[in-house]
Amino acid sequence: MNFNFNKLHAFTKHVFITCGMPEAEAKLASDVLLAADLRGIDSHGVARLSGYVRLHKAKRANMNPIVKVLHETPSTATIDADEGLGLTVAPKAMQIAIEKAKQVGTGWVAIQNSNHFGIAAFHAMMALEHDMIGIAMTNASPLVAPTNSKERMLGTNPMCYVFPAGKHQPVVVDLATSTAANGKLEISQRANKLVPKGWIIDKDGNDTTDPNALKNGGVLQPLGSGETQAGHKGFGLSAVVDIFSAVLSGANYGPWVPPFVSFLSPLPDLPGKGIGHFVGAMRIDAFRPANEFKQHMDNWIDRFKSATPINIDIPVIIPGEPEFANHKERMANGIPLNNMVVEDLKKLAQELHIKWIDEMTN
Amino acid sequence: MNFNFNKLHAFTKHVFITCGMPEAEAKLASDVLLAADLRGIDSHGVARLSGYVRLHKAKRANMNPIVKVLHETPSTATIDADEGLGLTVAPKAMQIAIEKAKQVGTGWVAIQNSNHFGIAAFHAMMALEHDMIGIAMTNASPLVAPTNSKERMLGTNPMCYVFPAGKHQPVVVDLATSTAANGKLEISQRANKLVPKGWIIDKDGNDTTDPNALKNGGVLQPLGSGETQAGHKGFGLSAVVDIFSAVLSGANYGPWVPPFVSFLSPLPDLPGKGIGHFVGAMRIDAFRPANEFKQHMDNWIDRFKSATPINIDIPVIIPGEPEFANHKERMANGIPLNNMVVEDLKKLAQELHIKWIDEMTN
Repeated sequence: MNFNFNKLHAFTKHVFITCGMPEAEAKLASDVLLAADLRGIDSHGVARLSGYVRLHKAKRANMNPIVKVLHETPSTATIDADEGLGLTVAPKAMQIAIEKAKQVGTGWVAIQNSNHFGIAAFHAMMALEHDMIGIAMTNASPLVAPTNSKERMLGTNPMCYVFPAGKHQPVVVDLATSTAANGKLEISQRANKLVPKGWIIDKDGNDTTDPNALKNGGVLQPLGSGETQAGHKGFGLSAVVDIFSAVLSGANYGPWVPPFVSFLSPLPDLPGKGIGHFVGAMRIDAFRPANEFKQHMDNWIDRFKSATPINIDIPVIIPGEPEFANHKERMANGIPLNNMVVEDLKKLAQELHIKWIDEMTN
Repeated sequence: MNFNFNKLHAFTKHVFITCGMPEAEAKLASDVLLAADLRGIDSHGVARLSGYVRLHKAKRANMNPIVKVLHETPSTATIDADEGLGLTVAPKAMQIAIEKAKQVGTGWVAIQNSNHFGIAAFHAMMALEHDMIGIAMTNASPLVAPTNSKERMLGTNPMCYVFPAGKHQPVVVDLATSTAANGKLEISQRANKLVPKGWIIDKDGNDTTDPNALKNGGVLQPLGSGETQAGHKGFGLSAVVDIFSAVLSGANYGPWVPPFVSFLSPLPDLPGKGIGHFVGAMRIDAFRPANEFKQHMDNWIDRFKSATPINIDIPVIIPGEPEFANHKERMANGIPLNNMVVEDLKKLAQELHIKWIDEMTN
């Protein structure tokens, strides 16, 4: 089923407002969630809306947080998100980073006491209109095991780097530091298909191609999978995200990151507050004139797109390119939602006594 | 054969001095090269010494460069390395980053017109004694193909992140963004062994386990290897390193990065100058008190080391842990060099009319 962007956005905003979020924040949170759906990152869009609501009902998310700056220097800040949703707090943090970059060249903000922030790319891409490089990362509920272990110790911990270009779309590198994210497993589960070796190990630590192995106590593998494929590098990258997001900010790290699902409780004796994010903005003209940089980015993109293909019909894809194409197509033709998500949203509408998506007007 | 650290260091320094490098620079360049040998990254240590000398003889490396700051803001700088060796220029750039971090919280330096900088970890680790996080990356001669391509478009482009700890050794994440670096292929070539699938594709774009396929026109795969193992993420990370190191600094990027080996000439119509690096330093106490951070790093390390292992005899290894162990062992017992490297250094000693390693006294 396909849904019009404006109607789906209005519905999402109403859900957040009904949960006590001020209108401007509800609009922002909806912008972030819908950005995922538009870009084709379906796992991080409205498919999670009821999850945020349940976190709110479980009193684990504050819909009207008062964000505090705990510490700052000319190029840095640490903020306490007051148990808000990362959806609204991360853009505020990014705004602080951008202001600092305007003043001293770069700005870096570590965030503690937050909740899931949606797609990293939304926050990082806020830098683009200022001719800045944007960076965003977050830790997340533990599902990934470090190399040699079968214990859930790390989230899929994404890192995102965004670079403006000139005539071309920006380069947007946005990746989970696991080999596969949970969304891909769910697709295989629904289709009743095996997954490639290297995505998951089962609860006993054995390689498996069963897409249900994660649900049954298994773990995701870090990017690179096993040792011969350099899985220890994926573990290292995931560690970088965890340390920047949480050890630097004062949030929870490793296995202590509170679960996104409201039916699981956080562990006792937490070492920090909530989950953590880390964002940054770097003014291009703090290094070289922005127009020069953008011309060279165009040249970089043109050269990589013309790299000799293995299969003449499959060209090199620039990071971010498929997502820009999805965005354009879905703005024009609507956002496809699968049946399970639609049913979930219908239940939510009934529960909160709000109109269904089709009846939304603004 | 094992060589005493001090004697090997003195030999290396003499080689650089004989090539026209001032003594202080020659000591620094030797510190960087030998740091690789001590840490067990044998491919980046004195095994490359004759390569640097050949670059100098081919007039592609300046042994006495005058480094210029092209542009700066309170938290950033871009420098022209004047065709110097990255071995000496990158530490100078890192020093600038550290000074800026002292002033405004973080410091970031992009370097153009440089040559190979040795191991990234040396430069990033300079931040540690200042209670800072250190970051270093560089692009390199093209050997890696982007996803869907069989053309050499990227180097093994390493990224390094270093975090200080308290009672424990720092966490040092230092990784090539390819699945395997060239050094690992050379080990398999010498042992006449096949390499795992996913490391290389041959010149026609087919998967291969032949360790000689790279020499015969093949390419290395990015971290993650093929598409089902998320090789596009490795391509994305490699792109991040290339853009920070070269598009931001004004160096050459992608296939235009000049080859390290002196018998290959740079391409015509280069878009930038030399190869590029990017370094950064972030003061911990620009975010939270350094002692708090270090206590939590110790807790992070303790928890990850105690993660449930798959095999009870193989614990989780913290990034950087094996290299600290190598350093200690090799300082005590000497640095092992393989026969080919020893022969190469002997030829170099004869060519430059300097004494052999065993006869060095300081």
